[in-house]
Parts: sequence; structure tokens; C-alpha cells
Amino acid sequence: MNEAVNPGGPATPDDAFWSPGAPPLFGQVTFVGIGLINGSLARDIRRLGLARRLVATSRQQDTLNEACRLGLVDDAALDAAAAVQGADLVVLGVPVGASGEAARAIAPGLRPDAIVTDVGSVKGSVIDLVAPFLDMRRFVAGHPIAGTERSGPAAAVDRLFERRWCILTPTGATDPLAVDRVAGLWQAVGARIEMMDPAHHDRTLAITSHLPHLLAFNLINTADDLEGVKGEILKYAAGGFTDFTRIAASNPRMWQDVFLHNKAAVLEVVGRYVEDLLALQRAIRWDEAHVLFNRFESAGVVHREVVRAGHAYKRPVPARLQADGYVIAEAPVQ
Amino acid sequence: MNEAVNPGGPATPDDAFWSPGAPPLFGQVTFVGIGLINGSLARDIRRLGLARRLVATSRQQDTLNEACRLGLVDDAALDAAAAVQGADLVVLGVPVGASGEAARAIAPGLRPDAIVTDVGSVKGSVIDLVAPFLDMRRFVAGHPIAGTERSGPAAAVDRLFERRWCILTPTGATDPLAVDRVAGLWQAVGARIEMMDPAHHDRTLAITSHLPHLLAFNLINTADDLEGVKGEILKYAAGGFTDFTRIAASNPRMWQDVFLHNKAAVLEVVGRYVEDLLALQRAIRWDEAHVLFNRFESAGVVHREVVRAGHAYKRPVPARLQADGYVIAEAPVQ
Repeated sequence: MNEAVNPGGPATPDDAFWSPGAPPLFGQVTFVGIGLINGSLARDIRRLGLARRLVATSRQQDTLNEACRLGLVDDAALDAAAAVQGADLVVLGVPVGASGEAARAIAPGLRPDAIVTDVGSVKGSVIDLVAPFLDMRRFVAGHPIAGTERSGPAAAVDRLFERRWCILTPTGATDPLAVDRVAGLWQAVGARIEMMDPAHHDRTLAITSHLPHLLAFNLINTADDLEGVKGEILKYAAGGFTDFTRIAASNPRMWQDVFLHNKAAVLEVVGRYVEDLLALQRAIRWDEAHVLFNRFESAGVVHREVVRAGHAYKRPVPARLQADGYVIAEAPVQ
Repeated sequence: MNEAVNPGGPATPDDAFWSPGAPPLFGQVTFVGIGLINGSLARDIRRLGLARRLVATSRQQDTLNEACRLGLVDDAALDAAAAVQGADLVVLGVPVGASGEAARAIAPGLRPDAIVTDVGSVKGSVIDLVAPFLDMRRFVAGHPIAGTERSGPAAAVDRLFERRWCILTPTGATDPLAVDRVAGLWQAVGARIEMMDPAHHDRTLAITSHLPHLLAFNLINTADDLEGVKGEILKYAAGGFTDFTRIAASNPRMWQDVFLHNKAAVLEVVGRYVEDLLALQRAIRWDEAHVLFNRFESAGVVHREVVRAGHAYKRPVPARLQADGYVIAEAPVQ
């Protein structure tokens, strides 16, 4: 593991993971960062024979060692420029704030026709950060709406993207053929593609993902600071608290970057949220039962719409199914 | 169904659900309100032969019709005083704010030795509300930390309380023998018992359950008011929003009462929460990455403590397990 990559050399069809029966979409795919998302993508690409050769680069030797040990990739290198040599697709899977640095590091090794994409949770900022270093005709900003609270190469799982949305946010500069090839990869691993303006993506994700995570992180901290009930918080977490701790277990560096790089949209929704929360607080203080009832009732209507929209999604279960017919689930109860 | 109850008459051992081999803990149990919690308790009592006769009362004839149709109880009556005649245990399962009214309604029909308990999410307020109407030596305030977001008799399920905590909050006035009998019932349906001061219960639940629900209700409302992204909220809810909609689907009347009847504790934790959220908002605005990182990292530590404390709890799965080896789960992803 971690040998120097084979620079520019043609991949041979006897690479263990490549099924000669299935025409691969790419020759070499290089992953810049190999954690939950890139690692899961690597597993699917390998299983489905979608590329001939997989390479990873990271600034952490430990991460590369683990990725190789897990068999996620064929080769790995700390030197990003060396790792992307020969790649026809490069996938950036780093914290959003590290995107510019990653683009700068890979630029010297990129083939002129290489397509670069990313999987970050913010799109406008990533496009701005990589633009000085990459040929933007072949940069396709992307965001698979999939994941778990785990991180690192060992968090990678098969079929993470099946039936999930992958949002691509091409700009006027993006080559439509590059968009098609990236879309084709995500579709091959089971995702549904949505095209969106980067700013619209960032505003949508601010409310559907970034704000919920901020609220969850904050609840844990508020609870943890509360004198006299700390032991009970752990004991009675099933009362509603558990969901929040799960999403708050996500990678701190990744989320720090998401909030700082989607600042305008996040500050707007946080502002609205606090305003609405203060209105509920006031209704509680002044016994305005009808205000509470109406707000709670309309929330139930939205829940039913979400369920109807199909967000009781499927996830693989065998590892969680117990012999006694029970499944370990972290969902909370009241 | 809905015949007049058999006032005071001895239950006969040939009641269909009573297994003569298992000594029942109670003769007649009457449920005041028969929704998710009381309905699930009725199912377990029947299945395990823990009482000879089950009766329900409610202010809604439809609810009683449904409870009888589902076989949750043997008999039902709109007249609460009639429904409790002959009962040696009465379980109040009504919105917290209706507890006083329920106590007043049952009082004329209660046997002098009948034990009354409840399942409400607030304890101090319930004790105050029922005190004018009941013999408080035989009122045992209780709160099983179990449930789902569903409500009504049809939401009742078997084994809802297995391995879950049930908090009992006796006061100095409560007869220890009455506490033992109520604890025995909950243990028989699989719950673990915790004794707690009512005020401590209310403060603990304010942070572990009431605040999380308020935050969830509020998120849905803030999102629903957001112009231009409403369709996307439903589409991309898997990004973190889904958990929130699930707990926000809970019964609006029940939750309205919880907040108004646990006002002091809820206002305290909401105040602290907003304070902490504004600090995060400020850190985002001023690019204080280290503030965000430190807060997020410590949240992950608490999550690991929650997991270690065993809140990856077990829930029955067969109805949710699909033939393809997948299970329908509503847990969100990033």
C-alpha cells in the first residue's frame, strides 16, 4: 500500500475489481480525501466495475493506510499531484474549506482532459475556492444527499447512494459533457440526479440540513451545561433527545466549514428560527394555548407531506437485525 | 360495545383474555383515555393476563368505538364515574391539562381502595390538578418514557414498554403499597422503574424531551414559512430534517399541555438554548472557527456517552422489514 502511483501508465484489465464484462465509465478515479462519502463511492465503483483503477490521496498517512487496508482503493499517495496523474476523474471529498487548497495541490498533476467533481455540502463557496486553480469547464460541483453520522474510511458502506438525490450545480462555464459523465457515475451507483443553481442549493440545504445540524449540536451543548440532571440526560435520552445526539455526532471540522462557507444562508435561517422560537416561548409564558396548538398542528401536516414525499427511506439492515427479531434502531420515542 | 359497565360485579375467570394459570395483578383496570400509551398498556395487560377485566372511558364516543373494535378493552362507557366502578386500578391517559377534570369525573365512581395512576409527561402539575378530587394516598404519579409519534387507539402496539424506563414520582402522602402495586404492573410489562421527585422529573424531561419536541415543531414551522424552497424541503428532507418532522408529528393537544404545565422548567431550558444558539450564530458571523469546532466536538463526546448508556434501543421490526432485506427507517442522513 501507499506505493508511488503508476504515473500515466495504462490500467490493466486484470485489476482485481474490474469485471471485464461491464464496460467501466472511467479508467482511473482518484479520491482526494477518503472518508465516509468518497470511501462509499469507491466501494460502489469497485463492486460495479465502474472504473479500472482507484487511487486515494489525503494529508493523513493513517487515513491512506486504513483505506488501503480496507481495500477501498488500489493505491494511495500523500502527494496529491502524483495521486491524480493518469486519473480521468478526480473526486474532492474534503471539508468544504479545504477545497481550494485541494484544487491547488492536484492542479500540477491533472491531465488536461480530467474531470474534477466534489461532494461538499456547500456549492457556491466551493466553486469560488477551486476556480483559481482548475479548468472550470471540467469542474462539476456536486452534493450527494446521503451519509451517516460516522466519518473516516471505516465508515464507508455499500449502496449508500441508492435511491438518494445527488444535486449537481453546473455553472455557465461548465462543459455539459462533463456534467453528463459525472451524472452517469452517480446514476450508476443508484442516485437520482437533480440540477440546481449553486445559490439555490445552498439556501435549500441551509434549511433542510445545516440548520437541523446546528440545532442538534446546540441542544447537546445546552444539555451538557445543565447542572444537576446530566446523568438523567443520558438515562432518559429516548424521550426525544436521542435523534439530536445522533446527527450531532457528525464530523466537527466538516460542519465548522459548512457553517462558515454557507454563512449568508445559514444566518438567515437561524435568524428566522430564533424569531419563531421566541414567539413560542412567549406563547408558553402567557398561556396562549391556541398559538401553540395551531403551530403544532401545522407541523403535523408538513410531517405527513414529508412521509408522502417518500422520506421513509430504505437502508440496509442485515447487520442491525438481531436473532430475536428485533432491530437495533436509534430512533427516539416520546 | 359500550354497554353499561357491570358495576361492582366480580369479574369471571372465563374472560377471554385471562389466562387462569397466571395470577392477575388486578381485577378490573379502567383506562381514562385510550390512546397510544393506555392502549398499548391495555394490549400488554391482556396478553400477559395481568387483569381480569379492562374498561375504557373517553369523552369521544368514536375513540371508545375504535378501542372496542380493536379489542383493547372489554367494555367502555362515556360516563367516567360508571367506567371506574369496580376498578381496583384506574390509569389516567389524558392530556396533562385534562388531568384535574378527569379526576373530578371519576371521583364519584371510585372504590375507596382503588389505586389511581397516570402516564402524563409532566408530574408536578398533574399532582396539583388531581389533588382536590382524589385520595392522594392512593394516587401514584407515573411516566413511562416510551411512545411513538402516533396517537389514538389504533396507534397502540404490543411490548411498547419493554426495556424502557417508567418514572414514578410518589410524594410524602403516597402509600408505599400503592407505589409497589403500580411499579409491579410496569415491571410486568417489561419496564424498568425509577423513583424521582416530581420537580426533578419535570426538570429532567424539560431538557430530554420537551425542549427537543419544541425545537422540532419550530423547525417545521420556520421551514414551512420559507419562501421559494418549500418543494425542496420535502425533497431533500433526508439531509437532517426528517428526524425533526417525525417527532413534530406528535399530538398537538398533548404537547400544548406539556409546555403550559411544565412552564417554569421549559422556559428555563428554552432561555438557555437560545442564549447558546445566539453564541453559535455570532461565531458563524465572525468566522470564529475554533468556537464552532470546540462546541461540535464536545457534542460528539456526549453522543458517544448516550450510545454507551444504551440508547440504541431495541424496537420490534417485523412489520418494517422488507422482503428485499431492507428495513424502512425514518432516520435521517446528512
